[in-house]
Amino acid sequence: MPGHLVVLSGGLDSTVCMALAAAETGSPPLALTFDYGQRHRVELDRAAGVAGHYGGEHLVVRLDTSAWGGSALTDPAIDVPAAGAGDGIPATYVPARNSIFLAVALGVAEARDLDAVWIGVNAVDYSGYPDCRPEFIEAFRGVARTGQKRGVEGNPVELRTPLIGCTKEAIVRLGVAHDAPLQLTWSCYLGGDRPCGTCDACELRARGFAAAGVADPALA
Amino acid sequence: MPGHLVVLSGGLDSTVCMALAAAETGSPPLALTFDYGQRHRVELDRAAGVAGHYGGEHLVVRLDTSAWGGSALTDPAIDVPAAGAGDGIPATYVPARNSIFLAVALGVAEARDLDAVWIGVNAVDYSGYPDCRPEFIEAFRGVARTGQKRGVEGNPVELRTPLIGCTKEAIVRLGVAHDAPLQLTWSCYLGGDRPCGTCDACELRARGFAAAGVADPALA
Repeated sequence: MPGHLVVLSGGLDSTVCMALAAAETGSPPLALTFDYGQRHRVELDRAAGVAGHYGGEHLVVRLDTSAWGGSALTDPAIDVPAAGAGDGIPATYVPARNSIFLAVALGVAEARDLDAVWIGVNAVDYSGYPDCRPEFIEAFRGVARTGQKRGVEGNPVELRTPLIGCTKEAIVRLGVAHDAPLQLTWSCYLGGDRPCGTCDACELRARGFAAAGVADPALA
Repeated sequence: MPGHLVVLSGGLDSTVCMALAAAETGSPPLALTFDYGQRHRVELDRAAGVAGHYGGEHLVVRLDTSAWGGSALTDPAIDVPAAGAGDGIPATYVPARNSIFLAVALGVAEARDLDAVWIGVNAVDYSGYPDCRPEFIEAFRGVARTGQKRGVEGNPVELRTPLIGCTKEAIVRLGVAHDAPLQLTWSCYLGGDRPCGTCDACELRARGFAAAGVADPALA
């Protein structure tokens, strides 16, 4: 089975994605993590923990998006809003974040001769980010087909999004079923010692665990 | 006129693109340059010179693609071939390079509220890179429409590729007509004191100047 790559943030969704990829391929995927200047830097340690759990290579790519700003997650001048604070796309949206992640992931996959890139985006219980939706992923499949040597040769790097239609409840259940190390994950947008419990990410996560009837092991 | 962004490598094509964008908008575009671990690092100095010539902001983004390799331009273990050394996509292809450049450019443009991203790709007298072709650019327009807040709001960042159908001769002529600072540009893939004269990039450039009947001012 050729190798796969998983975009791993250290959060719940990407960790469950890692578990699914490892189960399918039978070998540890390459874990790709971005240090993009996010304020919740504890994510990076958690990503390292999850990658270590699976035992494959962990590649951390640094790209400081705070150099151009535009997001509450990278710009100290913009506050992270409390959950449900507004309609539409929230202030935690990072311009082109998943485009950048997927472009780098496609490059790494091609350079390392890996057959698929997995990303844990989901468009059901999510924060309203446009770059988590099926139409965006489909557009990026077009990029893989047209913009890469492998695509031109008829063997594009595959983009896998197994969680895209899942509720948070379903993601928690999948993680439990696949023994994903959920106790190592971090979702909170703030970088405190403990999850804040009030941001969008904390609220979505809490609802998912509650609906699945599972205690969140990261809060133990 | 809202601001524009130009992906500026410091080479001939991107410098002519800069001249066209400056002429159209009447104000200095934001110049975006990537330090991606390229062996021809003199490019970066030339890009700074060109950006300085126009007087707008110059944003240099560092993303070390040599961390994953796969290209003669970033991996010291792979030699840069002489011009015409083989058919198909050459060893100087950098996996997903223009995808990464465009993804970051779209993010910067959205964060800075700029209306267009210009990139000097061309698919006529070029090196055979898949990510210089119209079908790739069209796929990336789909990414701008579906993956960004602005796209969802019906006002996607525009991707401008004025050179995509131009021969090198036409690009040289356009540059001369728009007073582009061609003397500041660098095309050679090798990082020597002078262009090598034998790599693909040198050969394409020389043919373009010769066909246009213009002496290359960078060789003066």
